[in-house]
Amino acid sequence: MTPFTMSERSQKLQKQLTKFMDDYIYPNENLYEQQVRSRGFAEPPILEDLKQKAREQGLWNLFLPESEYGAGLTNTEYAPLAEIMGRAYFAAEVFNCDAPDTGNMEVLVRYGSEAQKETWLKPLLDGTIRSCFSMTEPDVASSDATNIRTQIVKDGHEYVINGRKWWSSGAGHPHCRISIIMGLTNPDGPKYERQSMILVPLDTPGVTVTRMLPVFGYDDAPHGHGEITFDQVRVPEDNMIWGEGKGFAIAQGRLGPGRIHHSMRMIGAAERALELMARRSLTRETFGKPLADQGVIRQWIAQSRIAIDQARLLTQWAAYKMDTEGNKAARREIAMIKVVAPNVALSVLDRAIQTFGGAGVSDDVPLARMWANARTLRIADGPDEVHLDQLARDELRQYRS
Amino acid sequence: MTPFTMSERSQKLQKQLTKFMDDYIYPNENLYEQQVRSRGFAEPPILEDLKQKAREQGLWNLFLPESEYGAGLTNTEYAPLAEIMGRAYFAAEVFNCDAPDTGNMEVLVRYGSEAQKETWLKPLLDGTIRSCFSMTEPDVASSDATNIRTQIVKDGHEYVINGRKWWSSGAGHPHCRISIIMGLTNPDGPKYERQSMILVPLDTPGVTVTRMLPVFGYDDAPHGHGEITFDQVRVPEDNMIWGEGKGFAIAQGRLGPGRIHHSMRMIGAAERALELMARRSLTRETFGKPLADQGVIRQWIAQSRIAIDQARLLTQWAAYKMDTEGNKAARREIAMIKVVAPNVALSVLDRAIQTFGGAGVSDDVPLARMWANARTLRIADGPDEVHLDQLARDELRQYRS
Amino acid sequence: MTPFTMSERSQKLQKQLTKFMDDYIYPNENLYEQQVRSRGFAEPPILEDLKQKAREQGLWNLFLPESEYGAGLTNTEYAPLAEIMGRAYFAAEVFNCDAPDTGNMEVLVRYGSEAQKETWLKPLLDGTIRSCFSMTEPDVASSDATNIRTQIVKDGHEYVINGRKWWSSGAGHPHCRISIIMGLTNPDGPKYERQSMILVPLDTPGVTVTRMLPVFGYDDAPHGHGEITFDQVRVPEDNMIWGEGKGFAIAQGRLGPGRIHHSMRMIGAAERALELMARRSLTRETFGKPLADQGVIRQWIAQSRIAIDQARLLTQWAAYKMDTEGNKAARREIAMIKVVAPNVALSVLDRAIQTFGGAGVSDDVPLARMWANARTLRIADGPDEVHLDQLARDELRQYRS
Amino acid sequence: MTPFTMSERSQKLQKQLTKFMDDYIYPNENLYEQQVRSRGFAEPPILEDLKQKAREQGLWNLFLPESEYGAGLTNTEYAPLAEIMGRAYFAAEVFNCDAPDTGNMEVLVRYGSEAQKETWLKPLLDGTIRSCFSMTEPDVASSDATNIRTQIVKDGHEYVINGRKWWSSGAGHPHCRISIIMGLTNPDGPKYERQSMILVPLDTPGVTVTRMLPVFGYDDAPHGHGEITFDQVRVPEDNMIWGEGKGFAIAQGRLGPGRIHHSMRMIGAAERALELMARRSLTRETFGKPLADQGVIRQWIAQSRIAIDQARLLTQWAAYKMDTEGNKAARREIAMIKVVAPNVALSVLDRAIQTFGGAGVSDDVPLARMWANARTLRIADGPDEVHLDQLARDELRQYRS
Repeated sequence: MTPFTMSERSQKLQKQLTKFMDDYIYPNENLYEQQVRSRGFAEPPILEDLKQKAREQGLWNLFLPESEYGAGLTNTEYAPLAEIMGRAYFAAEVFNCDAPDTGNMEVLVRYGSEAQKETWLKPLLDGTIRSCFSMTEPDVASSDATNIRTQIVKDGHEYVINGRKWWSSGAGHPHCRISIIMGLTNPDGPKYERQSMILVPLDTPGVTVTRMLPVFGYDDAPHGHGEITFDQVRVPEDNMIWGEGKGFAIAQGRLGPGRIHHSMRMIGAAERALELMARRSLTRETFGKPLADQGVIRQWIAQSRIAIDQARLLTQWAAYKMDTEGNKAARREIAMIKVVAPNVALSVLDRAIQTFGGAGVSDDVPLARMWANARTLRIADGPDEVHLDQLARDELRQYRS
Repeated sequence: MTPFTMSERSQKLQKQLTKFMDDYIYPNENLYEQQVRSRGFAEPPILEDLKQKAREQGLWNLFLPESEYGAGLTNTEYAPLAEIMGRAYFAAEVFNCDAPDTGNMEVLVRYGSEAQKETWLKPLLDGTIRSCFSMTEPDVASSDATNIRTQIVKDGHEYVINGRKWWSSGAGHPHCRISIIMGLTNPDGPKYERQSMILVPLDTPGVTVTRMLPVFGYDDAPHGHGEITFDQVRVPEDNMIWGEGKGFAIAQGRLGPGRIHHSMRMIGAAERALELMARRSLTRETFGKPLADQGVIRQWIAQSRIAIDQARLLTQWAAYKMDTEGNKAARREIAMIKVVAPNVALSVLDRAIQTFGGAGVSDDVPLARMWANARTLRIADGPDEVHLDQLARDELRQYRS
Repeated sequence: MTPFTMSERSQKLQKQLTKFMDDYIYPNENLYEQQVRSRGFAEPPILEDLKQKAREQGLWNLFLPESEYGAGLTNTEYAPLAEIMGRAYFAAEVFNCDAPDTGNMEVLVRYGSEAQKETWLKPLLDGTIRSCFSMTEPDVASSDATNIRTQIVKDGHEYVINGRKWWSSGAGHPHCRISIIMGLTNPDGPKYERQSMILVPLDTPGVTVTRMLPVFGYDDAPHGHGEITFDQVRVPEDNMIWGEGKGFAIAQGRLGPGRIHHSMRMIGAAERALELMARRSLTRETFGKPLADQGVIRQWIAQSRIAIDQARLLTQWAAYKMDTEGNKAARREIAMIKVVAPNVALSVLDRAIQTFGGAGVSDDVPLARMWANARTLRIADGPDEVHLDQLARDELRQYRS
Repeated sequence: MTPFTMSERSQKLQKQLTKFMDDYIYPNENLYEQQVRSRGFAEPPILEDLKQKAREQGLWNLFLPESEYGAGLTNTEYAPLAEIMGRAYFAAEVFNCDAPDTGNMEVLVRYGSEAQKETWLKPLLDGTIRSCFSMTEPDVASSDATNIRTQIVKDGHEYVINGRKWWSSGAGHPHCRISIIMGLTNPDGPKYERQSMILVPLDTPGVTVTRMLPVFGYDDAPHGHGEITFDQVRVPEDNMIWGEGKGFAIAQGRLGPGRIHHSMRMIGAAERALELMARRSLTRETFGKPLADQGVIRQWIAQSRIAIDQARLLTQWAAYKMDTEGNKAARREIAMIKVVAPNVALSVLDRAIQTFGGAGVSDDVPLARMWANARTLRIADGPDEVHLDQLARDELRQYRS
């Protein structure tokens, strides 16, 4: 328990969530893994069962601060909950707290019209449909979002969309119905007002999911990562979110919470890896003594503990700042934890994999899959290097006269 | 070209091999990837085509130093060839130079009876069958080989084998016919004379490949990594290699060359990653300039070059020492490169992945697959930590009075 | 400002202290450096001037939580103050907040008799005398304190002390009058009750400061690090602190606050280095642009910012836990920050040195001296490795059944 | 013994040199340290004694490849000799193989006029005088040598020099008589033809050594690192080396060998540190067992061995390439080892310091001094970052179309 104010409500939910993980998530990890390996992009039955249980227990839509739609928790209150979910690869979805739906729901809550909320937000909150987010493009370095080229052109009361997107995570899910697309509406406007975000139902003519991208060999079924082409795709003008040219503004608002949610879950992934490593080291013997008695493993355990505790404090601080000063004021802290959390998780996971030997790289333990997932987070939503560069600019600014 | 004497023969083969890679391997990487994804553990047709071409050009069995069976190259001569093969994930198999067949062939050349050579070595050299090697067990820390528990019990003129093995790489290959098994024949004998190695055809009753283990998300079809149970498996006594109790001695002889072959290929993998990273950085722009003009990427490129060149020198030195002083005398150098090469490859591959962004973790470029493969080599044939510990013992010995 | 409750009192002192640093400390850094270089172990006049000013402003004895003797600040309140002091190498002494006096005063406050307080604590609080602490011995690995061999033998109403100590920091100071010595009183008692702490005035016959130890070439005058021999040294029995066999108990009590004070100052040293690096990078040009526009330097700046902010949060958390749950409950957090803070400071200082080039290793900027000081803290009060090992034991304990 | 051809002559000298180190250098390290601490910039008597012995044994001027002046060894032959010298901080000077004299002698051999050779080269080869090299300036980032501002203006048959230099290593030596100065003769000429090098006797009016710069806390007496002002300094036109505008060309020729000599010695420093660490770990006990039995120390020992062996191979490769293809062709290899060697030495030295605890940072063992010296080599002759950037440019060049 860190000194950040822990509300009673959050603590109660932490206990409840931990019990749910112990009772239902960990015991079903292998089953989930088997089902997704055998069924591909069909939804694994265990997932629907668990979602039903979570809904019944009120462990549903715990994200969404300052909103009547979700559980009404602050970021600080949500942080330890997201961490707990992050301990198992597929848990966040069980509680309807998984990316990219969470980010998309936040966008609709903040910037969506009433009609958009009615049509898309409600079923997303209910978990009856899922969604994806189409920003990154294969042909340009999307870490610089001004590179994005997809065209969104007004034609009467419709917009016509042409372009190619990839890493639309969730596009493979059998329940995925809608995507939020970022693209150019005003290519000659001011730099940060050229892009817009628009809602595109996946069954619109001209939308084709051309393939599902693997991540280190994982297809990440059932949600997956889609490459999607948009060929003369027409949607009503009312599908535009907030207004033309608001793409960057929405992205700023969307990415902050998304990044910190990922970070919170990464802390959980790292904690899980540390626990698995510690337990394994106590039960496995080489050269006449358990691994836990060998100095190098002990250093790994201690260094992991230190790195995790520091990353957690940084996450909580960022969350606290978002709550008390706003997402924009917390921009630097969010960038910091966006870089720190996946790297800490990767390093703890890697040590745990090494401790498990051959089992570590297989699917007998959840480490390899968690590692692959964490590795993408050094790239997604801007690579480490872009965030670090921005942090340096901020740091230097105060000394420029 | 390093100052290690490069024979004319090796240089000629290097040129020939490089041309083969340019003409046939790189252009077919995507096809190979598609075929294995779609066909699973059936052999991809492109592989047989390429093998035929390689055989015709005499690029076949280039390993096997000091032997009438192979190309008759020294380790020093072979090193740059294996490096070139390592530049593509599946190339070594095309030239019949892939683990575990190479190690198994070396065992049969050195320790096999004439009958064993006739029955198993010849078709392996011809490439008409493939093989696997069953040492590691799921239930014990096999990094300490004295832990191995599989029983090999004499019964009349047969041996009866009971046990469970995993990470029998190659067991999934449709042509895999034979495994070399390590197990206990004399559980009460002197510590390093308890284990033996024996040939077990995979179609022997009682042999069951229970599953194929994934590496991260890759099934590594068509060869794969098998878990195999041996349940009252009976083989003729003549299948014993060299003699009872020789398991450790054979392992020592087998693992040295196997480790350095892996290391040579890892240098190639790292070189490939560096080339891909450099090319990508020249063509990809963010924030108004190519990645190649950004300082951090440039540091990565330089640090990668330095790490690779050092690792190559160490590999060549180890190979040279094996050639001139014998495998045993080169034990320390082999242990060093066993640790260095995969770690260098992993770090260069990781930087290259980061440079490619989303494409890097997918199968659009061969980086993620190479990374997963390299990651297993920090575990296979003894984890880094065991080799480092042994190196420290050797280092300290000279100062003990 | 982190979310840890910052009392108004602390914030007011932070402002006052920052102003004092700006007005008096930074402008006199070079003068201090010159005076100590030219005068050796005589007190540099500037130091006494500054102490006088600090006393007048009430910036005096800010450490000492829960005590009527000091300023009455909590550890959490003191943390940002110690950080500010840590920005200049010699600042803590100016405010009478420097090791080892602070630790010795804490020992006397907590465990000293009334007479001991009257004789030694009062002048230490007044700053009229200074003190040293003699625990480490050259002949044994003192990281394991059970190795300590100095003998403290009762003889009538006196104790007779024989032994050799080193790294008695402060022993060179012209005002140093007293040392607290740790030694064996009950060599055959229970392991953690064999050692005692006793007060030994430095002018007692038999006490000889045999030499002052350099730290990377620095003699650290005027306080220095003494090697001291104790040859049949006799002190009254009343000099024993708390009682025979209490050495370990006192050490535990003494070292916790000492370690966190060092850590707080290390954060300050790192912040100073980051500021110097940032400013330098803005004013220095190579190859046509300022260092601040070069990617590698920018990564250093960002990585330094991230590491410092995480270390500060960990320090504040440890301080908060000491305040709310007691020093013993905060043992793990103190061990963590004891390892983290010097390593973070060293890495930021090293980058700053590299940014300054030749000036960085010289005394034109305070970086090299701060580095040497920080380097000792990876060894003093237990090397990193001992703390990490203990942390691993704690971590593993919860999983042992 | 690496596979690089080791000539009989070099091997014989290696044995002789090792014996000299064992007989005279190591036993006098403490004496040397004491003499320089107590005598400052007067020459320590032990140094002259040892030089005399070295000269008698023919262990003199072993550098200088392809020249009638020195021992006539190739770089490859000299490498292991320089490594042996590098094992003790002051050894190279004993054999007249120390920077900056070696570099200055190389300049005179290659580019000096007959008169310059007679006047300055001969006494330098005899060791009767010493010299310094004045390139770096305090007011500009000299890592970019085009920044250098010192003016060298022709006036009749003289040159008039005005400027300020620092890090003129050797300027403090009581025998230092001459400096080679780099400065602007043609400020408006082509970029790399603006600078010249000229010989300036230190007793010329207008030359003032204003201070000796410390390195961390070391003054590096008796040679030291001088800051020198040149105020209307007049020297005969014949003091110009090679010709006006040749400064860059000479620097290129001078710095290659100088960099590799430093690297060779750094390997020796690292080997020495590893030996000291290993020996210490065998004799020091904590928690009931010698440090050598603790896993973390063992990993340090193994990692150090691996890093050193790789760095040595890279050094020898670079030397070999200089011998066989010329200094210019070996530019990349020299840059690599210039970066690698000091970093390897620093990391091994740091681990050794940690193993020694308090003794490690003091002068009881030579580690701290060696560390400070190695640290300057990440800055001197161009910081790591500049070399890495250049290496990246070279690497990228081959892929630019």
